[in-house]
Amino acid sequence: MKGKFITIEGCEGSGKSTQIKLIKEYFDEKKIPVIVTREPGGVPLAEKIRPLILGKSDVNVSPLAELLLYTTARAQHIDELIRPALKSGKTVICDRFTDSTLAYQGYARGLDKELIKTLNDIALGGLKVDTTIFLDISPDEAFARKGGWDTNDRIESEALDFHQRVYDGFRAIAAAEPNRVKVIDARDTAKKVFEKVIKAICACLV
Amino acid sequence: MKGKFITIEGCEGSGKSTQIKLIKEYFDEKKIPVIVTREPGGVPLAEKIRPLILGKSDVNVSPLAELLLYTTARAQHIDELIRPALKSGKTVICDRFTDSTLAYQGYARGLDKELIKTLNDIALGGLKVDTTIFLDISPDEAFARKGGWDTNDRIESEALDFHQRVYDGFRAIAAAEPNRVKVIDARDTAKKVFEKVIKAICACLV
Repeated sequence: MKGKFITIEGCEGSGKSTQIKLIKEYFDEKKIPVIVTREPGGVPLAEKIRPLILGKSDVNVSPLAELLLYTTARAQHIDELIRPALKSGKTVICDRFTDSTLAYQGYARGLDKELIKTLNDIALGGLKVDTTIFLDISPDEAFARKGGWDTNDRIESEALDFHQRVYDGFRAIAAAEPNRVKVIDARDTAKKVFEKVIKAICACLV
Repeated sequence: MKGKFITIEGCEGSGKSTQIKLIKEYFDEKKIPVIVTREPGGVPLAEKIRPLILGKSDVNVSPLAELLLYTTARAQHIDELIRPALKSGKTVICDRFTDSTLAYQGYARGLDKELIKTLNDIALGGLKVDTTIFLDISPDEAFARKGGWDTNDRIESEALDFHQRVYDGFRAIAAAEPNRVKVIDARDTAKKVFEKVIKAICACLV
């Protein structure tokens, strides 16, 4: 593996999309080869799975089946896109990854965290994340900033205490792996947050 | 669990569909409550997953992702259909189950058998198969009897040596679990095979 694998994590409304857009612009300007991707998604199979997980569908998806769909999408994503890109020397920036699964399915939905770690490891097949940026803003602050809910998104329309458990999960993960997870205060303006984000990313690249 | 869980396994062309039709007729005639289902499928989510596994699609599915799709479909199938039916006292007859995954993905495609067993156990969540009917006929005999290949089916159109490995896998599973797996010579006429099949099933029900 020559390229670096960087994941961006955070609650709904934490500013992930904005930061990822700024990161991409920065890499393009510096002419550093980069692939920006997202989970669940990034490859055709994962995009087919995505609506089953995120859509308000009349198809029943049990919590375990949901977890397995994320794992499937991730396995294909790694095999088809992430691993080849890293091998070719590109930096890969991924919008959500294994920490989101542990935070949402484990800490928030209450699925067995050891089971989630087992499935994350199965999908990873030995791949390691070099650096994770955790955009740290609490759900109530994030939703206030965002101006409300996207009711078409099943995950997002869950109650606030669900999002609080997600947030607590991310903080617990960050506390457990301080070398990998960089906690960045995301309550500031996008520009100021980006200064801290890109500093952490550049520290990983050198 | 009050009902019995019976799975029917075998290679392509082993006569599963014919036997399952006869079993259903037998149960209906005796007015014994039965649910006949199949894998991958049986519930809406699994039916959505089924074409991704079986169809000749332009969507790439890695061997690991394929295995995880089977696991997902199975988890939902158990949660939504099999477990509730067994709880209500019905017999459940399932066309293919965990042994097919181990035979096709493990013995034939060469995926790690321990990984497959781990994922089978995750999907099962403690559920046990009471009896498995293995319709024992070698691939060359089965295909000769069937009169050829279904080239629209990605699994079926694999080379004959693939099917030989599947067959060897089923026989190894049957040898390892003789109490659960009833090996039934499937080279005979449908009627004669059925006599042996229903005898094994009735032995499980009493």
